[in-house]
Amino acid sequence: MNLILLFPQDFSNSSQVLLADPRRVEHITRIHKAVAGDSLKVGLANGDVGRGVITQISAGQVSMRVELDTPPPEASNIRVILGLPRPPMLKRSLQNLAALGVKDIVLLQSARVEKSYWQSPQLTAAKIQHELVLGLEQSCDTQLPQVRFAKRFRPFMEDELNTYAGTDDKLIAHPYSQTSCPYNQKDPLVLAIGPEGGFLDKELDSFCDRGFVGVTLGSRILRVETALPYLLGRLGAT
Amino acid sequence: MNLILLFPQDFSNSSQVLLADPRRVEHITRIHKAVAGDSLKVGLANGDVGRGVITQISAGQVSMRVELDTPPPEASNIRVILGLPRPPMLKRSLQNLAALGVKDIVLLQSARVEKSYWQSPQLTAAKIQHELVLGLEQSCDTQLPQVRFAKRFRPFMEDELNTYAGTDDKLIAHPYSQTSCPYNQKDPLVLAIGPEGGFLDKELDSFCDRGFVGVTLGSRILRVETALPYLLGRLGAT
Repeated sequence: MNLILLFPQDFSNSSQVLLADPRRVEHITRIHKAVAGDSLKVGLANGDVGRGVITQISAGQVSMRVELDTPPPEASNIRVILGLPRPPMLKRSLQNLAALGVKDIVLLQSARVEKSYWQSPQLTAAKIQHELVLGLEQSCDTQLPQVRFAKRFRPFMEDELNTYAGTDDKLIAHPYSQTSCPYNQKDPLVLAIGPEGGFLDKELDSFCDRGFVGVTLGSRILRVETALPYLLGRLGAT
Repeated sequence: MNLILLFPQDFSNSSQVLLADPRRVEHITRIHKAVAGDSLKVGLANGDVGRGVITQISAGQVSMRVELDTPPPEASNIRVILGLPRPPMLKRSLQNLAALGVKDIVLLQSARVEKSYWQSPQLTAAKIQHELVLGLEQSCDTQLPQVRFAKRFRPFMEDELNTYAGTDDKLIAHPYSQTSCPYNQKDPLVLAIGPEGGFLDKELDSFCDRGFVGVTLGSRILRVETALPYLLGRLGAT
């Protein structure tokens, strides 16, 4: 937690903050070992970054006087369509995507996604937001990514993808492509990444029919949680 | 486990393999759901990749007839000096580094590394090899990375680093550098990455005195396990 993310409900007026949830309070008291008078990096969700000076710590509560004066880091130019990973991998992937500045994430059903994954408690709005907040707090960002579900592959491809991707560049990571993944892409880009085991050939074709270019990282098969930062680093996400 | 990594002691002759350890046997029987006659991707540690045809499965043992005919993927041109991460992060970092083809890793003491980390059971040779094997099995590689410990910062810097790094390019990841991390570096490269909290300024200076150039990824602070694949993707590690 390199930044403490604040929400409107934490504010009693424009500069006074009272934190009473164990996660942030314990982090401030146990990890930062902060005391009254200390100044911590804070940010308002979807707002500016600044400093919070601790005015009081008592019985599970932290009061701060907050000044927010700096915009958060620039958002990534990359949006990500991700074959729904299994729940533990989803957690780390959401944290990584949020930390790396991706602001738009589609979780997609595909043939190699186990249908049961969609029933995971990890997909509740609260759990998803929790992972995103962890990623933002790590990288000192405040802008919460939007996460949407595409629970049916074909309707998403046929009815939504063209509108969604628009005129952005479109890449799909695919180990068996002949085209090497490019570096340092400055233009808006939609990046599709398959689930464990990859997309089926016909799913890949369906993306390519809609303007996506298959790109490979070489012969190595990477886990999604490794492939995501690797690809975003290569493409110059942030 | 996209490849089953074999060791010389698994071979009863040049092509006959008997696996009796629960980890690989259970993976073959429960995850692959393999039966006699099935062919699986295998590789010999530090050797070639090929196929293993299952000749028998019984009571916790798998017999295979193995043919190894393909070299493993090319090694990365990047060696990594890593401020020793805390144990769970070390596990994932070693897996990631092995999966991404890095073959030489130095784990370095620095001021912000808690000394107790060096006592972690995670640093035994067996545990380190286990994480490396997981990474290789993921990415279908066979070449085990070398991992060495530099338990004292100054002696390593003063007595070993110049010889170690030689004439390779030298970069040190540092959030407050003015130089943006380059892309797609083809030449041999030594990359230094600090522990959680980063290197001290004087530690950074010590690297720079020895020819390292500080490079930044922007204002985002990333966890080591995210920063590693991100940097290796950007630098074109594999």
